[in-house]
Amino acid sequence: MIDYKLHIPGPVNIAPETYQSMSTPVMGHRSQDFVALYQSCQPNLQKLFQTEDPVFLSTSSAWGAMEGSVRNLTNKKVLCCMCGAFSDKWLDVSRRCGKSAEGLQVEWGKNIDPDDLRKQLSSGEFDVVTLVHNETACGMMNPLQEIMQVLNEFPDVISVVDTVSSFSAVPIPKDEWGIDVILTGSQKALAMPPGLALLTVSERAFRRAEEVEGRGYYFDFLEFRKNHEKGMTPSTPVIPLIHALKHTLEKIFEEGVEARHTRHAELNQMVHAWVAEKGFELLPEKQFASKSLTCVKNNLEIDVAGFVNALREEKKLSIDGGYGKIKGKTFRISNMGDETAETIAHLLAQMDEVLARFV
Amino acid sequence: MIDYKLHIPGPVNIAPETYQSMSTPVMGHRSQDFVALYQSCQPNLQKLFQTEDPVFLSTSSAWGAMEGSVRNLTNKKVLCCMCGAFSDKWLDVSRRCGKSAEGLQVEWGKNIDPDDLRKQLSSGEFDVVTLVHNETACGMMNPLQEIMQVLNEFPDVISVVDTVSSFSAVPIPKDEWGIDVILTGSQKALAMPPGLALLTVSERAFRRAEEVEGRGYYFDFLEFRKNHEKGMTPSTPVIPLIHALKHTLEKIFEEGVEARHTRHAELNQMVHAWVAEKGFELLPEKQFASKSLTCVKNNLEIDVAGFVNALREEKKLSIDGGYGKIKGKTFRISNMGDETAETIAHLLAQMDEVLARFV
Repeated sequence: MIDYKLHIPGPVNIAPETYQSMSTPVMGHRSQDFVALYQSCQPNLQKLFQTEDPVFLSTSSAWGAMEGSVRNLTNKKVLCCMCGAFSDKWLDVSRRCGKSAEGLQVEWGKNIDPDDLRKQLSSGEFDVVTLVHNETACGMMNPLQEIMQVLNEFPDVISVVDTVSSFSAVPIPKDEWGIDVILTGSQKALAMPPGLALLTVSERAFRRAEEVEGRGYYFDFLEFRKNHEKGMTPSTPVIPLIHALKHTLEKIFEEGVEARHTRHAELNQMVHAWVAEKGFELLPEKQFASKSLTCVKNNLEIDVAGFVNALREEKKLSIDGGYGKIKGKTFRISNMGDETAETIAHLLAQMDEVLARFV
Repeated sequence: MIDYKLHIPGPVNIAPETYQSMSTPVMGHRSQDFVALYQSCQPNLQKLFQTEDPVFLSTSSAWGAMEGSVRNLTNKKVLCCMCGAFSDKWLDVSRRCGKSAEGLQVEWGKNIDPDDLRKQLSSGEFDVVTLVHNETACGMMNPLQEIMQVLNEFPDVISVVDTVSSFSAVPIPKDEWGIDVILTGSQKALAMPPGLALLTVSERAFRRAEEVEGRGYYFDFLEFRKNHEKGMTPSTPVIPLIHALKHTLEKIFEEGVEARHTRHAELNQMVHAWVAEKGFELLPEKQFASKSLTCVKNNLEIDVAGFVNALREEKKLSIDGGYGKIKGKTFRISNMGDETAETIAHLLAQMDEVLARFV
């Protein structure tokens, strides 16, 4: 029985109305009723992705779309920008797909440097770059605009940007910045349950896919496009989450996208202020700190697991005790989804109370 | 607004309690609470699949697992048994994965003949066979036991059986019959919403996967197994559907699996009796007619689309007007899920009333 509230960096806390929306009856996915549902989401999705490219619904976690991107786009070699657990893994996944792949690695918590990227791409051997915008494991947000400026110097290189934990929390103007593929998941800043990935693909990327063999079917970009034109998905989709998506999009535009971004920035600042007040530090440099979650360096050397457990057991609030090799050396607090100044203030006050026993 | 009840061959009608179960709060998928949920499903899943092999939860439609099976298991060549829309497509999908593949094709509505299969396999060029047990498009159920007897004569050939629209409706003793991989989807006889595929993999198939390159990550059988041992999935799973699965499994064992099979057989007979009484015929031969749905040949040459629309508009009951190249030449009625003698009798009575205007 889950009797605690999620403040981990995904899945995040889900509103009762979102759960409720998933009980809207399902229909045949080749029926006009499904087409109406699919098409009703599209204008809002394009607005939110700031793109005129189609936005596809993939019944999978984001990893499916991440693997799919590599399979669809790589003829020569992928360059994987590596700065944390998820971006590091993308290199391994690319190779498992039988693709030639190399990493541009920085220390966890550090950002990808646009000049380093330019140097790597100058060799001319790469035709795809993968980038995790917001490294959830490190709470680090890459300087996407500057990185895209470099990528746009290389017209034969397709950019694939994972925005899993930044999408809808900060502005990412896809078309303006010239991003080819953006992908994200449902369970982060969109505050929906997991199980649905969203991805949007540029004309340039479709042209590349047309030249690539072995794309398969389930994540084939061209199959997505063909079905999209009919208001459908290539395979049976996770319809309850599409109902939830429709509801979520309406809610986002009710609040207003700019207001949403401002809210996330303010909540994030509240957490940062708490971190500084307690004498903790952020893992990344301040200017590259994520705006959707906070990765706190455990410089006070507290018992992180004990702290996180006590907070969950006693206060019914769940934060994260660090991911992968920085487990225990960091802890993470999400301000994604529907959080407000009140709910974050409550969280921080409860953390204060519990922390007193651990410092 | 969906104001009609689904009697199409998937998704089928979903009980309010199943929708309700999806509102159980989600948790972090690396938490002990998730492990408890995952592991609570496993014994019932193994019982239902009649296997000691692990049963994996794939956040995808069944097509993902179908594509994944080919990518995981094929080193030499796949033989795709083709007898309808879905099994035919498996050949195409296999080739799109860059695999060498060939078809054993029969006319839609006809069954796969075990002797023909033996002849094909005797060439020694194949190391995987794909079979759709119950061709949903044709309402035809292959003689699986006889086919498995042939497959067991070829110990180097891995069998992959799609039971999307037969699983839990008829007995399929996996271990006893020696099936390597069984896969199914959530939205057919299990009567859950779409978005979750289930698959179970034999030791032999794992050993094969260990020798195959390019399996990727998202559908990698060895990743599934590695995570399964910890009570987890390789990627973030569609947690609401796992809550629904837990609920559904409990409901199935409350009814009793044998009682469930008997119920489906009886309901199917009711539909068959209606078909005969009206002067229609079944598409497949009687002995190979599916027990989970009925594919009716339109030998009376009615306006199928008009009939199906009228039934939905006037009676709020949705049956299917035929799939792919046999659209209009057939129509299909599902008896999967939670249907009872009362609900099927109601459906048939309403069909009677509407049909009178179309014959």
